Amino acid sequence: MASRPVIALLTDFGQRDHYVGAMKGVVATVCPEAATVDITHEIPPQDIRAAAYELAAAWPYFPEGTVFLAVVDPGVGTRRLAIAARIGACFYVGPDNGTTDLVVVNRPVAEAVLLTNPTYTRPSVSATFEGRDRFAPAAAWLARGTPLASFGSATTLSARLLWTEPHASGEDLVGEILHVDRFGNLVTNIDRRCAALAAGVARISVADRVGVSLVHTYGEAPEGSVVALVGSTDRLEIAVVGGNAAMSLGVGRGAPVRVLKGA
Amino acid sequence: MASRPVIALLTDFGQRDHYVGAMKGVVATVCPEAATVDITHEIPPQDIRAAAYELAAAWPYFPEGTVFLAVVDPGVGTRRLAIAARIGACFYVGPDNGTTDLVVVNRPVAEAVLLTNPTYTRPSVSATFEGRDRFAPAAAWLARGTPLASFGSATTLSARLLWTEPHASGEDLVGEILHVDRFGNLVTNIDRRCAALAAGVARISVADRVGVSLVHTYGEAPEGSVVALVGSTDRLEIAVVGGNAAMSLGVGRGAPVRVLKGA
Amino acid sequence: MASRPVIALLTDFGQRDHYVGAMKGVVATVCPEAATVDITHEIPPQDIRAAAYELAAAWPYFPEGTVFLAVVDPGVGTRRLAIAARIGACFYVGPDNGTTDLVVVNRPVAEAVLLTNPTYTRPSVSATFEGRDRFAPAAAWLARGTPLASFGSATTLSARLLWTEPHASGEDLVGEILHVDRFGNLVTNIDRRCAALAAGVARISVADRVGVSLVHTYGEAPEGSVVALVGSTDRLEIAVVGGNAAMSLGVGRGAPVRVLKGA
Repeated sequence: MASRPVIALLTDFGQRDHYVGAMKGVVATVCPEAATVDITHEIPPQDIRAAAYELAAAWPYFPEGTVFLAVVDPGVGTRRLAIAARIGACFYVGPDNGTTDLVVVNRPVAEAVLLTNPTYTRPSVSATFEGRDRFAPAAAWLARGTPLASFGSATTLSARLLWTEPHASGEDLVGEILHVDRFGNLVTNIDRRCAALAAGVARISVADRVGVSLVHTYGEAPEGSVVALVGSTDRLEIAVVGGNAAMSLGVGRGAPVRVLKGA
Repeated sequence: MASRPVIALLTDFGQRDHYVGAMKGVVATVCPEAATVDITHEIPPQDIRAAAYELAAAWPYFPEGTVFLAVVDPGVGTRRLAIAARIGACFYVGPDNGTTDLVVVNRPVAEAVLLTNPTYTRPSVSATFEGRDRFAPAAAWLARGTPLASFGSATTLSARLLWTEPHASGEDLVGEILHVDRFGNLVTNIDRRCAALAAGVARISVADRVGVSLVHTYGEAPEGSVVALVGSTDRLEIAVVGGNAAMSLGVGRGAPVRVLKGA
Repeated sequence: MASRPVIALLTDFGQRDHYVGAMKGVVATVCPEAATVDITHEIPPQDIRAAAYELAAAWPYFPEGTVFLAVVDPGVGTRRLAIAARIGACFYVGPDNGTTDLVVVNRPVAEAVLLTNPTYTRPSVSATFEGRDRFAPAAAWLARGTPLASFGSATTLSARLLWTEPHASGEDLVGEILHVDRFGNLVTNIDRRCAALAAGVARISVADRVGVSLVHTYGEAPEGSVVALVGSTDRLEIAVVGGNAAMSLGVGRGAPVRVLKGA
C-alpha cells in the first residue's frame, strides 16, 4: 500500500443528499490518511450497467493499490452479497452485482471475500445504507492494509449482466451505443481492435446517417460535422464537432451503430 | 485535534460557481494539512431547514474534532450573528440561524463564540460572501487548533426554527415528511423510538395510501410496492421498492404521514 | 512549493462521467501528496468565457504555488497549443485559448512553456482527452517541483478573446452582465473602481428597471427588492433580496447594465 492510499468512490447517490459525505466521514474516521477521489455519484439510480461502464473507464488511471468503493446497489436489503476483491493491482469493494463486469474482462480476480466480519463494519448496519455501514468501513480498513482474508470467507464474483457484443452482419459489424456522455458523444461497444477501424478505412452508419467518416481528431472536420473516431476509452465514438451528437441525431443508449466494411 | 483535521462543508452554493472552490482555497492557505469533505452544496438556496436536516444526518459519521463549516445564509449582510461552537465532540462554524437545530437536540453545546476577531478573518470581508472571508478562515484556524475563545466573546446559540413534532390523533400518530431524497424516498419526522414502530406492528398511511406495510428491508416486498421502514437516519421512511415514492405518490416535504396504531 | 501542493481543477466535464475522476487518478499516480480542489466542473460545454470568469474569481483565494489545471478545450485535437505558465505566484496548466484572459489582467506572466516533452505526458495521448493524458500529468509533475523549462520550449500566451469593456454614454456608464450565478445574481463587468460606485451615489438601470438603488449589503433593503451592490468579486452585481434576479428580471449574460451618474 502506498504512503497515501487512495479510495475512489462511484455511486448513484447524487450530490444533493448527505449520503456520500457520510461515507467519507466513515472513511476519515477509520483511515484518516486516505485520499478520497470521486469518480462520479451521478450514475442513474440503480443503473448497474452505467456503473460498470464508468468504473472500467476510470480504473486504468488510478495508482496501484487504489480501493474502488462502488455502491450502485438496487439489491440493498436483499440476498445479493457484499464483497471485496483484489482485481489486477487494485481492490473493489461493493455489492456483487455486475458492477465489475467490464473491469474483469482483462484483469485477473486474485482473491474475493464476503464482507461479513463485524469487526470491520459499523457497530450497527442499516438495512438501507450498507454503503455507509459496511462498504465504506471495509474500504477504509483495506486502505489501512487489512488483509482481504480478515473480512470474511473466500467467495467468487458471481453476478454477471448480459452484455451485447458487436456482431457481424454480412460484411458489416453491428454494435450499439453503450453510453452518452455529458457532451453528447455516443460511445459504442466497438473497440479499437475492430479490423476496419484499425485499418482506418471504415465508414460508419448511425441513426439515419450513412457513411459517417472516421477521423483521428475533431480538428480534421469542420464545426458541426458528424464524425466517428476512437475515443479516450479506446472505443468507437460518434461525435458532432463543436456540438452534441445525441441531440443532433436523436439517439441514445442501445441504438445500433454499423461499421461498413465495404467502404 | 487529530493528526489530519477534517473540515466538512455544507452549503447552498451549488457547484456551478467558484464559491465552494474559493472557500477551499482559503482553507488550504490557512491549514494545508486539513482534509476537506463535502457533505452537500445542493441545499436549495437559503433553505435552512434542509441544511439542518442534512447536517444532523451526516454529523454522527465524522471523526471527533471535525469542523463542520455550514453556510446556508439568507441573512448574510443582516444582523444575524457569525459563530463557532463546540457541540458534542465536534465544531460548528457558520451563521447562528438554526442550521444546528437538529444537531443540538441530543448533543451539548459546550462553548460558543462570536467570530469577530479580525486576526482570523480575511483582511477584507465581503458583505455578500462571509463564507469565504469569515467562516472558511475560522474553520481552518480551528482545525489548526486555535482555541474557540480566541475568535471572539462568548455567546449562546440563539436562533431556532419552529419544527413540527409528531402528535397523537386518537390512537394514531401523525407526523410529516421532512425530506425527499434523490431516490424519491420520503423521510419523516417520526423516529424509530415511536412505540408502534418499535413493536414492529405499525401500518402507515401517506397520501391516499392507507395501510402501507412496515418492513425491515426492501427485499421483503416485491418490486414496485409502497413500503414503510426505518431508514438509515433512524427515521420512518416511505419508499417504493426499486422505484421513486415521491413521484409515485405525488407528495413532498410537509405532507402528513400517519402511523395507525390500531393495526 | 509548499509541503502539500494544491492542484485546483476547473473544467467543463460535468460530474456525470468519469472524466474528472480519471484526471485525479492520474494526479494521484504522479504526485500522491497533492491535494486536489475542485473549482467547478460545470462550465457550460466549451464556454471559454465562463471558464475565464470563474478562474479569475477563484484564483486570489488559493495559496502560493497552486497549480490551476483548467481544461475547457473546444480546440482539443486541433492546432491550439497545450501550455503551462507561471502567472503571479501560481501556475496555469491547460490549453492556450483565452482561459487565462482575466487572470493576466493584473498579474505578470513570468514564464510559459509548451507541453511537448513526452516524459511528462501519459505514454499514449488520446486525441480527444488531453486533460487526462497531457494536462493532468503536467500539473502533477509541476506540483512535484519539476521546473517549467523541463516541459518544453518557451512560448508566450497568445490566445485572447474579445471582452467588452464598460463604456461612457453621455454621463452614464454602460456595462453588461458577465455571469449569472446559482442564486440568480447578475454579475457585471463594472468593477468597484467605477467612480460613481466608489462615491456611493450611483443609481443603476437594468432591463426595464430604472433607478435601482446601490446598497452595501442585502440587509439594507426589504425582501424582494431589486438592489445593486459591489459583490464578492469586486464587481457590480444586481440582486433580488431573498430572491433570484435573473428570473425576476428575465435577463442573462450580455444584457446591458447602466450606471446613471446623474442620480
